[in-house]
Amino acid sequence: MTPKIAVDPVLVERYIMELARFGAVGESGVKRTVYSPEWVAATDQYARWCDEGGLQVRRDAVGNVWGRLDGSAPGGSIASGSHIDTQLPGGRYDGALGALAALIAIRTLKAQFGTPKRSLEAVAFCEEEGSRFPAANYWGSRAVTGRIAADEASTLRDYDGQSMEAVMRVVGLDPACIAQAVRHDIDTFVELHVEQGPVLEHAGLPVGIVTGITGLRHYLVEVTGEANHAGACPMDLRHDPMAGAAEMISGLLSTAENMGRPAVTTIGRMQVEPNYSAIIPHKVSFTIDARHPDPECLAELYSRHEQWLRVVADRRSLQLRWTVLAEHATCACDMDTVHLLEAVAREQGTACMLMHSGAGHDSQVMAHIAKMAMIFVQSRAGRSHTPEEFTSIEHAVMGINVLAAGMYRMAYL
Amino acid sequence: MTPKIAVDPVLVERYIMELARFGAVGESGVKRTVYSPEWVAATDQYARWCDEGGLQVRRDAVGNVWGRLDGSAPGGSIASGSHIDTQLPGGRYDGALGALAALIAIRTLKAQFGTPKRSLEAVAFCEEEGSRFPAANYWGSRAVTGRIAADEASTLRDYDGQSMEAVMRVVGLDPACIAQAVRHDIDTFVELHVEQGPVLEHAGLPVGIVTGITGLRHYLVEVTGEANHAGACPMDLRHDPMAGAAEMISGLLSTAENMGRPAVTTIGRMQVEPNYSAIIPHKVSFTIDARHPDPECLAELYSRHEQWLRVVADRRSLQLRWTVLAEHATCACDMDTVHLLEAVAREQGTACMLMHSGAGHDSQVMAHIAKMAMIFVQSRAGRSHTPEEFTSIEHAVMGINVLAAGMYRMAYL
Repeated sequence: MTPKIAVDPVLVERYIMELARFGAVGESGVKRTVYSPEWVAATDQYARWCDEGGLQVRRDAVGNVWGRLDGSAPGGSIASGSHIDTQLPGGRYDGALGALAALIAIRTLKAQFGTPKRSLEAVAFCEEEGSRFPAANYWGSRAVTGRIAADEASTLRDYDGQSMEAVMRVVGLDPACIAQAVRHDIDTFVELHVEQGPVLEHAGLPVGIVTGITGLRHYLVEVTGEANHAGACPMDLRHDPMAGAAEMISGLLSTAENMGRPAVTTIGRMQVEPNYSAIIPHKVSFTIDARHPDPECLAELYSRHEQWLRVVADRRSLQLRWTVLAEHATCACDMDTVHLLEAVAREQGTACMLMHSGAGHDSQVMAHIAKMAMIFVQSRAGRSHTPEEFTSIEHAVMGINVLAAGMYRMAYL
Repeated sequence: MTPKIAVDPVLVERYIMELARFGAVGESGVKRTVYSPEWVAATDQYARWCDEGGLQVRRDAVGNVWGRLDGSAPGGSIASGSHIDTQLPGGRYDGALGALAALIAIRTLKAQFGTPKRSLEAVAFCEEEGSRFPAANYWGSRAVTGRIAADEASTLRDYDGQSMEAVMRVVGLDPACIAQAVRHDIDTFVELHVEQGPVLEHAGLPVGIVTGITGLRHYLVEVTGEANHAGACPMDLRHDPMAGAAEMISGLLSTAENMGRPAVTTIGRMQVEPNYSAIIPHKVSFTIDARHPDPECLAELYSRHEQWLRVVADRRSLQLRWTVLAEHATCACDMDTVHLLEAVAREQGTACMLMHSGAGHDSQVMAHIAKMAMIFVQSRAGRSHTPEEFTSIEHAVMGINVLAAGMYRMAYL
């Protein structure tokens, strides 16, 4: 049995609300983009809290903040954390809760059990969202895992056209030193994060233990037919790409539905040319976002989608072209760590389920250098990337208790 | 038997090519918006040709150009014509061919047969397309039929924000006098126009006699669901308006297909919010353009469409809202005139078919004050509103011969 761990709900709530003041937008929104004054202030606060908790504070070459509690024995550390940047605006919980959870778990463990055998680390990563530099997702965790290309800091541009290296210098970071952020001494990385979906709420559970992170492809599909007059061209003589696109979309969505959870397919974006009500379109373009956490099912999903597109285009004599805009492989969690987290949740009487993550996270990048697992806590109505996102303190504390107990088992026993 | 009428193909081709120089864009495009310098020059040319053909030229209060050949007997005149303004750019034939056909037919009749019993008139209408003033369609024919509202010239704005009254004054027209354009002395109006669809080409026929002009409605349909994360929200928990819209669109198009010619339904415009590839949309809006020339079938088409929208929205628990953006009643041609035109076409050995018009025309406005009919000539590949629109001189001449013979039968016998 793991001893009882007493994470303080008052502290959890205070940290969440105080961190949310940096970049506050309206009642509950937060807009805190990497290397902005709000981000600098938030990382300063995070560093102060690490220091107050008795952790050694270090900022790495890209501005990730680390709080470390040295262990008495050698070996890689047990690390936890998440990102401190937000969407435009996001809410108080996405990212922030995981960064705080790590810090709170470690300070609680230190206060209760003193020095661990294995070193423990909390981290606040930067620019996971890509909300300032749209092509820089996972910037902080990519730096730590050596996945930033040599020219990236000079070529990446933010929405205002400023280069990454220029804005790094503004906050006192030297872009030439990025490679110094690389770590080779992390044994296990566990990220706590809000679910961002409705699965836990729907199942009536506070906590999920993640078994893997979804793989995905973004396709851009272009269906071309023949523009014509809406009144003068009979239905039977048309080559209408809208008719083809509608049939394609219905079939794509049904394919994912019929494959069953956790397959998901989304058509989120569409463009019609020329987009006039009285003209049969010349071209309809749309995106497909298709995801599955199992590599074989994912390949099957892609293949069924591509086949369906071809079937409809051929039958309707429409031109079809697609491009893969983005692709991420599936990422499996370390099952020993998953089972350990599940076991401590059960010990604590915290109802939980094994589930996958349908969204990407820093932990899938960290999986390149460490054993990786994740803990999800319930999101109200599955909302995220909006000021309305909400996770109750009760659920947050239950998740942090699982994290702390898991770290205890890994670092103290 | 109608005597042989000898419309000169060389004249037809010369007039088409010369008129197309006013506002020429590229090889075969024409951009000639109402009250522009190109439009002024084109109407001057039209007036000169009327004059050369021995017709009395008059410009009315909105700038329509009329060429008149007085008849020896009293009674309303037999008029023909079409519009001289174009799309942005359109081609050489849409509108222009009908205005020229009227002028050529009447000058040919005068040269061959002298003074008619009934007066004959050719007209070049202005701003049928609404290509300069988007809300001013049928401006010229509406003026002639008393269908311009008292405040319209002061409230209508062109794409540059100028008022109709201001640009009328620039070309020497007094907006206070618009009502003077009204005519009460036209007995029959016959418009020759390019088909703008592929029906005649598909049937291998040069000429169509129009039995009626389609009625239509433009709907704006708004389907609202719940935005969510493309990865984190399972298919079975979504309220995806894109899934609903795709099913609606497929069903709407099938409804028109299954009803058969001449029912047509077009989804030409779509807007997705927020339109990001990784977000299940919150809202999908699209237009429906539904047309049928028979009033009962049209009502049936509308009713089936509205019912289908409701069925899909209810089954998928999506919010549904629609607005009727525009509505035109069906307009029947005068069947005596239709049969007369059909008879003279057969006398001339010109293969033709009775058909409806799926597009709107000045003649549906003129139908308020006169017996109305239309002659269509074949459009290559059904194209119009583009520099690529094309009608052969052979087909144009066949159409003008039918028009001239029809006018002969109405005005000389």
